[in-house]
Amino acid sequence: MHGENRANLVSHFKTPDVLKNSVLYIKGGDEECRYDTDFERLFRQESNFQYLFGVREPGCQGIIEIDTGKSTLFIPRLPEEYAIWMGRILTCDDFKQKYLVDEVRYVDEIPSIMKTIDPAVIYTLKGVNSDSGATAVEATFAGIENYRVDNGKMFVEIVECRVIKSAKELELMRYVNNISSAAHVQMMRTCKPGMKEYQLESLFKHDSYFKGGCREQSYTGICGCGPNSSTLHYGHAGAPNDRLIGEGDILLIDMGAEYHCYTSDITTSFPATGKFSDDQKAVYEAVLAARNACLAATKPGASWTDLHALSYRVLAEHLIRMGVLTGEPQELVDKDVVSLFMPHGLGHHMGLDTHDVGGYPKGSVRSTRPGFKSLRNVRDLKTGMVLTIEPGCYFIDMLMDQGLADPVKSKHINKDRLNQFRGFGGVRIEDDVIVTADGVDCMTVVPRTVAEVEAVMAGGEWKIAGQVI
Amino acid sequence: MHGENRANLVSHFKTPDVLKNSVLYIKGGDEECRYDTDFERLFRQESNFQYLFGVREPGCQGIIEIDTGKSTLFIPRLPEEYAIWMGRILTCDDFKQKYLVDEVRYVDEIPSIMKTIDPAVIYTLKGVNSDSGATAVEATFAGIENYRVDNGKMFVEIVECRVIKSAKELELMRYVNNISSAAHVQMMRTCKPGMKEYQLESLFKHDSYFKGGCREQSYTGICGCGPNSSTLHYGHAGAPNDRLIGEGDILLIDMGAEYHCYTSDITTSFPATGKFSDDQKAVYEAVLAARNACLAATKPGASWTDLHALSYRVLAEHLIRMGVLTGEPQELVDKDVVSLFMPHGLGHHMGLDTHDVGGYPKGSVRSTRPGFKSLRNVRDLKTGMVLTIEPGCYFIDMLMDQGLADPVKSKHINKDRLNQFRGFGGVRIEDDVIVTADGVDCMTVVPRTVAEVEAVMAGGEWKIAGQVI
Ligand SMILES: [Mn+2]
Ligand SMILES: [Mn+2]
Repeated sequence: MHGENRANLVSHFKTPDVLKNSVLYIKGGDEECRYDTDFERLFRQESNFQYLFGVREPGCQGIIEIDTGKSTLFIPRLPEEYAIWMGRILTCDDFKQKYLVDEVRYVDEIPSIMKTIDPAVIYTLKGVNSDSGATAVEATFAGIENYRVDNGKMFVEIVECRVIKSAKELELMRYVNNISSAAHVQMMRTCKPGMKEYQLESLFKHDSYFKGGCREQSYTGICGCGPNSSTLHYGHAGAPNDRLIGEGDILLIDMGAEYHCYTSDITTSFPATGKFSDDQKAVYEAVLAARNACLAATKPGASWTDLHALSYRVLAEHLIRMGVLTGEPQELVDKDVVSLFMPHGLGHHMGLDTHDVGGYPKGSVRSTRPGFKSLRNVRDLKTGMVLTIEPGCYFIDMLMDQGLADPVKSKHINKDRLNQFRGFGGVRIEDDVIVTADGVDCMTVVPRTVAEVEAVMAGGEWKIAGQVI
Repeated sequence: MHGENRANLVSHFKTPDVLKNSVLYIKGGDEECRYDTDFERLFRQESNFQYLFGVREPGCQGIIEIDTGKSTLFIPRLPEEYAIWMGRILTCDDFKQKYLVDEVRYVDEIPSIMKTIDPAVIYTLKGVNSDSGATAVEATFAGIENYRVDNGKMFVEIVECRVIKSAKELELMRYVNNISSAAHVQMMRTCKPGMKEYQLESLFKHDSYFKGGCREQSYTGICGCGPNSSTLHYGHAGAPNDRLIGEGDILLIDMGAEYHCYTSDITTSFPATGKFSDDQKAVYEAVLAARNACLAATKPGASWTDLHALSYRVLAEHLIRMGVLTGEPQELVDKDVVSLFMPHGLGHHMGLDTHDVGGYPKGSVRSTRPGFKSLRNVRDLKTGMVLTIEPGCYFIDMLMDQGLADPVKSKHINKDRLNQFRGFGGVRIEDDVIVTADGVDCMTVVPRTVAEVEAVMAGGEWKIAGQVI
């Protein structure tokens, strides 16, 4: 798979502007300790390096020669004593067999090997991640200043590669989606009032690791019940999923396991008791309708921004029906009333990172409108893209107050009806989908209709990839 | 508890050399993203700040006025929008109630508040961690250069505070030891040939989180079977506990959960089938005898280096009895033959860090002898210290070969008998103990004798803190 990925990237460099005898040069992640202690964080490979080399070990680097496609992996030269603590030291040959590269050498040999290659241009990786605003750390070696270095092109090209997933990448992503789907089902079956939110987090992690071999999670688990379900990034250290689950609570669980650094990102929402109340059902059906509309409209050529607006229109229809809003759906979208209930974007690219690269290609502009400005993607869709579709509807005090205080927006809000939802929390439905030639392939396989959710929570069977769980 | 800790540290500054109106100034940990992405690592507080303030949130700082003991916690001033993503923004008053400090202000107010206090000396925290060799990051604010700063004394004094645990700290550590002990018992009951090593890791994490609320582990789990059990830090990303457990394998599981940043660190060793073979029993009994001898000899005034040597002597006796070594036990210790089988130190301080601070007080020297040089502590013991006692016996190819190749050591080795243990792996027994006025209080409550291990693995009952599990 990674050989294919390397070939893919190299093909982007087969253009007239790329000089003969040029190379791509990239570094992997390093092991890190916490603060000043010797607590070693479990190493997780940097995603671009993972894409090209798929190497589990820290401290590696790589060179790909563009003319021939020849790949050389550089590994750290470890002291002999390392074997006592970390196991038999793998030789260069071991690495070659393990990772199917053309050659393996030690990191300290990079300067001399670069001298032998004598590249016309060394392409290094540098660029701004559009989700974090942070810049990747460029690879370097002693003497690199004697070469011509281009640190811009590789970032642009590798992002384009990563935006379209290969068949093998999709296979991995489908695997981890199946594992995460099954873990969500186990949580739904186990949940009952009186449990702590973190017990569901624990169960999910165990299910996906024990049964699926997923040692890492794609992100910190969000397991909110009651009012916590409207805190979009609940579960962080200051609010660590430690509330008691109450009888009338709705739960919002956003968790996804990771496998071979490929992520999944799934949200389920369900009532603590296993039976939806009328209001819970109304909010849930609103989000489900938005999700269904977006799934139906997802296809090559579709604009992601339009899909986001579509989810708002459907939500508006339902909020009107529920008596919370008044007016025309499109008018409510245009006046930024709906974004009060869904302040985040419809979804994001997903791959080696949960918020995967490529949402804002060069020249694209971020909107300043509420909701739209939170979009993590503004591309039109193409076959082979993987995205999350995750509409939600939340009752967030701050935003409800903002809406009621706004002279334009408040005219569309039924204050008394709205106030009945204070403390309700929120609902999100998040699926991971592949854009196919004629529409969409939803990798996520969890109960979605009210009937399905209630049946599974009552202990009913559920099928994933042909297997009853 | 943290108020008590602050008072403890302040009492170390009530000396004639400390000027009136001086303050202690310290920073907490910051939130971090992985590489250039927006993947936020779950925040875990820096241990010294945790000791003094016990705050779960990132980005905080603190000042303690030495004359009065007055504590001021500084919190980040968060943008209003933060409430949508992270939940209601806690006010200064909320923080004051949550963490029981005298005052709470915003981090951006530190320069002005420092001006008001106008301290004679600002003590900041800087020093080298003896386990990692790394240096703590000092707190700083705009204008600190206008004050007299002492960045040496606080590190020395806080280490002395942390070396002796308070009653409340011990209560927490006993709690998390009970949780971890129970999780080890569950693993032993569940283990059978044909499982993957990581399934035991998963089970341990789940048991300690689901039942004990321990979201963090004290360190990456080491779950080695067969030959892997002799790799001291097995389980890292390059060797991620992914071997199939074989019929004749011994398992070595070194895992410990963490609670409120207080750690535990427990190793159990047991046969995959639940029944020890003769050789497994011989090695296990050797390590158990070393552990029992060390537990019996642990008391205030005892030298940790002497205890380490004691474990070597007992191991030597058993290795002689097993026919692996020949000679006198003390001779084998002196000739560095025993350290071939136990190349690590006997144990370490444990507290807010697994390898807790204070093992090498100022002026102490690290030995250069094999085994002894790996000691993480060279102090004589005092009441209230918490240490791990973790003798082991491993058959590591590299060290066996070194022994056989050495003209002095090889005379004491029965080559044929030794070679029977190639591929055997290793055994470690690790307990967490409190040094008491008259000896030792072992917090770890797991099956230890061969009979206990076999009974529990066959499904027998086990009691922890009066509860049958
Ligand atoms: Mn998502
Ligand atoms: Mn230990």
